[in-house]
Amino acid sequence: MSAGFSVIIVSVGNELLNGRTANTNAQWLGQEVYSLGGTVRRVLMVPDELPAIEEAVKECLARGPDWLVTTGGLGPTYDDVTLEGVSLALGVLLEENLEAKEMVLRSLSKLNMGADPRSLFTPERAKMARLPSGSIPLSNPVGTAPGALVKVGGTWMACLPGVPAEMKAMFLEHIGPRMARGKLRTLTVEVEVVGVPEAVLAPFVLKLARTHPSIYVKSHPRGSEEESKLVVQLTGRGEKGVADALSAKAELTSYLESRGASFMSRELESQ
Amino acid sequence: MSAGFSVIIVSVGNELLNGRTANTNAQWLGQEVYSLGGTVRRVLMVPDELPAIEEAVKECLARGPDWLVTTGGLGPTYDDVTLEGVSLALGVLLEENLEAKEMVLRSLSKLNMGADPRSLFTPERAKMARLPSGSIPLSNPVGTAPGALVKVGGTWMACLPGVPAEMKAMFLEHIGPRMARGKLRTLTVEVEVVGVPEAVLAPFVLKLARTHPSIYVKSHPRGSEEESKLVVQLTGRGEKGVADALSAKAELTSYLESRGASFMSRELESQ
Repeated sequence: MSAGFSVIIVSVGNELLNGRTANTNAQWLGQEVYSLGGTVRRVLMVPDELPAIEEAVKECLARGPDWLVTTGGLGPTYDDVTLEGVSLALGVLLEENLEAKEMVLRSLSKLNMGADPRSLFTPERAKMARLPSGSIPLSNPVGTAPGALVKVGGTWMACLPGVPAEMKAMFLEHIGPRMARGKLRTLTVEVEVVGVPEAVLAPFVLKLARTHPSIYVKSHPRGSEEESKLVVQLTGRGEKGVADALSAKAELTSYLESRGASFMSRELESQ
Repeated sequence: MSAGFSVIIVSVGNELLNGRTANTNAQWLGQEVYSLGGTVRRVLMVPDELPAIEEAVKECLARGPDWLVTTGGLGPTYDDVTLEGVSLALGVLLEENLEAKEMVLRSLSKLNMGADPRSLFTPERAKMARLPSGSIPLSNPVGTAPGALVKVGGTWMACLPGVPAEMKAMFLEHIGPRMARGKLRTLTVEVEVVGVPEAVLAPFVLKLARTHPSIYVKSHPRGSEEESKLVVQLTGRGEKGVADALSAKAELTSYLESRGASFMSRELESQ
């Protein structure tokens, strides 16, 4: 099936590795990328440590994705070191970006209506205005830390914060629209089947996948094997993919009818 | 800080990459490993594709963790290819394991009280009894697919299912107790501070981290920067780490008292 554009996500944060926090950022980004017609090829979660971040960025860039998105580690504290790690990975300086500094100052002036924002521009806040040399600062409509966008060879790399509200707002404002250029019409058909164990349906599902290589076929069990409820998902992209998903649905439902199985189907289209 | 034993997690499943499912398995495993005194060094999420799985296992093994845990892709369907990918990565055959076959048959006999379980042993179910040559099968108290445990150099690799209830039951029965040998007493002190912005407290937190290198120091903002509520977490492992975490707590609370900040602290001990 056509992959559209490819994305790799690097999620930075000790809290993701010790289980304090679920990586809902990667899930949300996966949904967005998918609905824009792209494919997340891998997600890598690493701790707030410079060598780990540098290494993760290098190895993911070496895979040549269209997009590399990092989340986390842009804040004011000493362990927010993502942009320093990115600079090391790219072999460029981490330096004050004047536009990013303006963004931080604007955010500080909103914070304390009376005071001169420059008096609040402590070293910890100045740190948030230091970006890898050559990057475009991304304004943060929700928080203080700007993000960074930088082109590395054929890859656009976007560094977004870890706070979900900030990450989402910045993705929707700055990144999604740029990714959307590669958009393809996508149709997902879901058929919920009751009373046929997954292992019994599996040969037919395999046959569907083989006879329709342009679509993505997947079955998900629901509940225990005893209950035998499962969802078969058929996804096609582009005109041919959508047509093939509809043919596969017709084959599957007539097979289920012939076996007397009960089922329900629905179609989800994203443009 | 003492790392105890090191763990890498490879999570296999397209549903993790397209955002259909949050990777709560990795979060749960992170908590378990942490409470056993180990550290998850990285989590890698890859799709249900043989080359992606083979490559992920190879690169994670090359990092030499004490444990490599895979989740997902052990079921009966054609896209459950984790064990095939592991076999490719290890350069060993994927072959029927007699003990695993017994496990699958036992599970089938529970499923259909009357029928001969051998009549239900379809090619799809037989697939679940095929393990990488040399591995120890792990019984699945909740579902049908057995897991696999195999020693590769200095690394124990455990392959667990993706269904959370099955993964958890198998981890608790087979894997946790083996990991627990490396256990260390761990104390986490959490100090919740109200009314001091994170950027203001950051220099003191950095000082704490520098003067107590044996402990892990982290501050987490709560809510928006305007509300200025944050949690400082101090974690120490082993006798020295625990003593250091308690000294750091005393320094932090007397600093907060001197600033007239309001705070609450609590201590969490895992043995």
